[in-house]
Amino acid sequence: MLGFEYFTPTKVYFGRGVEKNVGKEIKKRGYKKVLIHYGGGSIKKAGIFDTVIKSLNDEGISWVELGGVEPNPKIGLIREGIKLCQNENVDFILAVGGGSVIDSAKSIGLGLAHNRDPWDMIINRIAPEKSFPVGVVLTLAAAGSEMSNSHVVTNPEGKLKRSLNHDLLRPVFAFMNPELTYTVSKFQTGCGIVDIMMHTLERYFTKDQDTDLIDRISEGLLVAVKEAGKVAIKEPDNYEARATLMWASSLSHNGLTGTGKNAFFPVHKMEHEVSGMFDHVAHGAGLSVLFPAWAKYVYKYHIDKFCRFAVNVWNVEMNFEHPEYTALEGIHRMEEYFKSIDMPVTFKELGIGEDSFEEMADKCTNGGKDPLKSYIDLGKEEIIEIFKMAVGN
Amino acid sequence: MLGFEYFTPTKVYFGRGVEKNVGKEIKKRGYKKVLIHYGGGSIKKAGIFDTVIKSLNDEGISWVELGGVEPNPKIGLIREGIKLCQNENVDFILAVGGGSVIDSAKSIGLGLAHNRDPWDMIINRIAPEKSFPVGVVLTLAAAGSEMSNSHVVTNPEGKLKRSLNHDLLRPVFAFMNPELTYTVSKFQTGCGIVDIMMHTLERYFTKDQDTDLIDRISEGLLVAVKEAGKVAIKEPDNYEARATLMWASSLSHNGLTGTGKNAFFPVHKMEHEVSGMFDHVAHGAGLSVLFPAWAKYVYKYHIDKFCRFAVNVWNVEMNFEHPEYTALEGIHRMEEYFKSIDMPVTFKELGIGEDSFEEMADKCTNGGKDPLKSYIDLGKEEIIEIFKMAVGN
Repeated sequence: MLGFEYFTPTKVYFGRGVEKNVGKEIKKRGYKKVLIHYGGGSIKKAGIFDTVIKSLNDEGISWVELGGVEPNPKIGLIREGIKLCQNENVDFILAVGGGSVIDSAKSIGLGLAHNRDPWDMIINRIAPEKSFPVGVVLTLAAAGSEMSNSHVVTNPEGKLKRSLNHDLLRPVFAFMNPELTYTVSKFQTGCGIVDIMMHTLERYFTKDQDTDLIDRISEGLLVAVKEAGKVAIKEPDNYEARATLMWASSLSHNGLTGTGKNAFFPVHKMEHEVSGMFDHVAHGAGLSVLFPAWAKYVYKYHIDKFCRFAVNVWNVEMNFEHPEYTALEGIHRMEEYFKSIDMPVTFKELGIGEDSFEEMADKCTNGGKDPLKSYIDLGKEEIIEIFKMAVGN
Repeated sequence: MLGFEYFTPTKVYFGRGVEKNVGKEIKKRGYKKVLIHYGGGSIKKAGIFDTVIKSLNDEGISWVELGGVEPNPKIGLIREGIKLCQNENVDFILAVGGGSVIDSAKSIGLGLAHNRDPWDMIINRIAPEKSFPVGVVLTLAAAGSEMSNSHVVTNPEGKLKRSLNHDLLRPVFAFMNPELTYTVSKFQTGCGIVDIMMHTLERYFTKDQDTDLIDRISEGLLVAVKEAGKVAIKEPDNYEARATLMWASSLSHNGLTGTGKNAFFPVHKMEHEVSGMFDHVAHGAGLSVLFPAWAKYVYKYHIDKFCRFAVNVWNVEMNFEHPEYTALEGIHRMEEYFKSIDMPVTFKELGIGEDSFEEMADKCTNGGKDPLKSYIDLGKEEIIEIFKMAVGN
């Protein structure tokens, strides 16, 4: 177990109807002017927006709104948000949505706290020194941004998608009502399931030794998500399945499953190039295409861990004579699971051809100079090889 | 999954040598005068005290010390600590030790924050409204008090041991170096293993439905602790085993394993009467005596859960025709495990006779008026029955 720091200060309120109390919570913390940040109009249609403004109005908290956050949130709207908050003397940002909305809110907060362009901070790897308070009403179980220290922003100039992680980026509170996710589409639910599993798997598949405690916790989480995922896809208004996915989204990305480990997130890094370049690609869909290919490429460098995954998560019987069969069967079952929840597992399904592989691999490795860390270093060539394994027929 | 609140703001620094940075951390937070609170002289012999004062001195932080915390920490020393802090203008309490020392520090903080006798607050169930900052250098993996919201205090007058839980009682930071637990005796290590497992089990065995996510995480934690426990007992200086126990001690009691559940801690409540009345009884030893008896008394009221426990934690094969055999075999293996790490499983081993059962059961139920909640209500008679099942030959 490697040394680590662990800090998850986000106050979580979980359960039916909790979002009604968001105004009280903000008032208790002494804030007076809120930016309500959200995506498309779905939160208005679903009545969530009305619930939130009633809760704020009841406590005498004034607010302004900024909607329009797209999947893969764009720096343009973030800059607009910063100006709006400065003009309106906003002292608290309330993200009402999923990962993209929360990440956009975190980026606005980053810019406000430092009075600086947040894209400039991300690109130049400038560590935050201050925080601007961000709270969450969660409407999508996926990214885990509601408790995480991370955020991802896209700059359409150059089609770059980049992340910055820091404990100062953790939301101060998160209201999580699983009912608010009943209306999430089957496809977005599937994307969320993949994202949750991948946040755990990127931390699970590392070179580190003596990680049994966290590996077992991670395996338990993966099995529970797998089972709940099947139910949520079939019965979108199954409270227990939605609740399991929602709480698992936070636990898989708040740091817990990475304690004592050094995780490099190679699949996420490859995926960021895919959805950075092809804006129509949902993050979860990119991950479900890339994970099986990555796993088939690297499993032989840590076959014991892939066998353990197959046995403990997928109930594969251990083949001691040919452990590679066990390892590959585990990867196969994961891929089949993704298919069973209607997620793509090939580039063809994403509508992406081989002609873009070179450019994506180039960006992903900073022109070949910075190979991705994984069980082996993944340079430009290796990444192209992995992309090719995911082409599809 | 029941609705819940979750809040674990304690900043954790985990790994070899982390305690050297405690002075820097306190300075960063702006405190100037520290009470170093500890138990017997073992931290001085082991050099931990010297490391801590060097770290404080290096940062120019002044300090006073108060040692002498006993297992089952006493209100007398706590009152002494409050006076000392007031006289010395202490603004930060640093607990260097295990659960008893941390709980004693929390109680001193409670008294200082409210300028009121903390025993009076505990007995009258007065909810804290303010906090006084407490930090931890952990030297024992057991109680989980380093991240928990709870603390337990003993009043020798009336031999009462009582707890009070509140989020304001969570330490602000915890430095956890598994090496500091190498010198913990075999018996105290065993007590810690039992305490860690019981913090998870008291939350695992509840009536709540649809708790698969947390149940699986709990089962993973229990298996990892079981395996690491065996190693730590045989090889006291095995870093990985000590690290697993240490991080599991926090995770089992910081609230995670109780999310979505309503846990009543019946075994802990019975044990508090035992070690409250018999000061020579270590908390972990009391728990290892009481859990098997409690489980054998109540398993039939939720046989599915006891079967799941047997299968997932103890690898018992499910007997579908006679599920009670499976359930009982799981309890039996737990009891055998306690024996294998030299923990007592009978009152006889604790030197306690049946003549005290009536009084303990009476105190535990407030004179029979407040039965303990569990799978069934446990009144005075039921508790005496459970005690009798643990008498021993």
